[in-house]
Amino acid sequence: MRILITNDDGILAPGIEALYQAVSDLGHVDVVAPDDSQSAIGHAISVLKPLLVRRVHVNNVFHGWSVAGRPADCVKLALIELLDERPDVVLSGINAGANAGINVLYSGTIAGAMEGALMGVPSVAFSLTLSDELDFRKAGRVARMMLEPFIAARPEPGACLSINIPPLDKGWPRGVRCCPQSPTNWEEHYEKRVDQDGHAIYWLDGSLPDHDASSETDLAAIREGYVAVTPLRANLTHWKKLGPIAEWNWPASFGQGDRTSAAD
Amino acid sequence: MRILITNDDGILAPGIEALYQAVSDLGHVDVVAPDDSQSAIGHAISVLKPLLVRRVHVNNVFHGWSVAGRPADCVKLALIELLDERPDVVLSGINAGANAGINVLYSGTIAGAMEGALMGVPSVAFSLTLSDELDFRKAGRVARMMLEPFIAARPEPGACLSINIPPLDKGWPRGVRCCPQSPTNWEEHYEKRVDQDGHAIYWLDGSLPDHDASSETDLAAIREGYVAVTPLRANLTHWKKLGPIAEWNWPASFGQGDRTSAAD
Repeated sequence: MRILITNDDGILAPGIEALYQAVSDLGHVDVVAPDDSQSAIGHAISVLKPLLVRRVHVNNVFHGWSVAGRPADCVKLALIELLDERPDVVLSGINAGANAGINVLYSGTIAGAMEGALMGVPSVAFSLTLSDELDFRKAGRVARMMLEPFIAARPEPGACLSINIPPLDKGWPRGVRCCPQSPTNWEEHYEKRVDQDGHAIYWLDGSLPDHDASSETDLAAIREGYVAVTPLRANLTHWKKLGPIAEWNWPASFGQGDRTSAAD
Repeated sequence: MRILITNDDGILAPGIEALYQAVSDLGHVDVVAPDDSQSAIGHAISVLKPLLVRRVHVNNVFHGWSVAGRPADCVKLALIELLDERPDVVLSGINAGANAGINVLYSGTIAGAMEGALMGVPSVAFSLTLSDELDFRKAGRVARMMLEPFIAARPEPGACLSINIPPLDKGWPRGVRCCPQSPTNWEEHYEKRVDQDGHAIYWLDGSLPDHDASSETDLAAIREGYVAVTPLRANLTHWKKLGPIAEWNWPASFGQGDRTSAAD
């Protein structure tokens, strides 16, 4: 089988090396990843600039393509240009920090997997919850164990899973929970400074509340020591609202002048 | 009423000025927008660097805050720090180019509105489909007419609409259609160059196919001359898949060693 690995912490990050090592016996593994950290870059792609690409050899562990771009760029470029053959699965991570709750939207790790899914390749994003010491080797073992049922299930082309691993410094995960994204938002503030020219500078800081309205969420699962599995979809349409919104009093026309004529 | 406006084309873009002018009689309008173009930046936020903020006076039309950050940063910063009072609505745009179909995921304009919705303020993203000549003044009039039923409907705090305006150089829109995001993906390729150091450089190019599997989508609506209204949601959970995925053969345990003990 052929595996493509990307991440958002950059090709030199320990999480991507651990993921490579955890899955390299499964088949042919290619690594195409950003040349530096792309945290909270979301599903950005590079349309205003070209992508510089270099082959790199990382820690005598793997060769890979280092891309001056975003995680979604890496996957797009890999599938369209760089790889000889289409991968059977795209893996993104292992991210340093959970991508659960509202963070799913901001995450470059998730976007890497989502881009794979958009291009028709089943994809998984792996994230390790922050703790005092991040044991990526252990996280790699968890990722590998989680990957097996995914592969065995022969997921459909657009399948995309986000897998969040709880902190591992307290031992192995208690088990696995399949659960939705928590809707809980961050509690945030900005630290303000004034620069030498008198301009204001704001630095974002914040935390996710450690309680959750529901215990059935990804955040609750990792807090309780479980691996959280969340299936994701790329279509943001709020289907339930389509009907009600269609009933609103939308304009029947916008102006005189037939659209097919040159009027107006 | 209080309105916050942002965009992803930057505070000097003609679309944001047109939107300001179209809605300024509705109440107090604040503008907080990126200092330069943030196209395809997705829902990125700035966590690795602070945000430089300057007050600017744009074309004798409005004062605003120019932020060295992303659209989502602008909305977050406005609501948490910059504004005296919480806005009643967040508007993002008017973007130069449709944010329909798969582009919703890549769009900074959408992310600006989505961030407002995440923070509990009803939000609308406005985008004008590209054509030979972009008439933002006319698009502003359409946006204003579309805003009235939105306000009249007293949308819930997390409501988020994407409104795509068809090309206006052929006349006014034929009407309004409420429709989902098209799942049609881009047809893409990369132009390859080699730089002076021998490194490969790839530049993304592509287009959305001008046909669609379904005529009931945002892309079909704007192609046929209608304003497309799509309700969006921030939660990416693929709810229908949760049940089936929970049936997969996930690991029952990951390793010896009690999680509550210091083992392993």
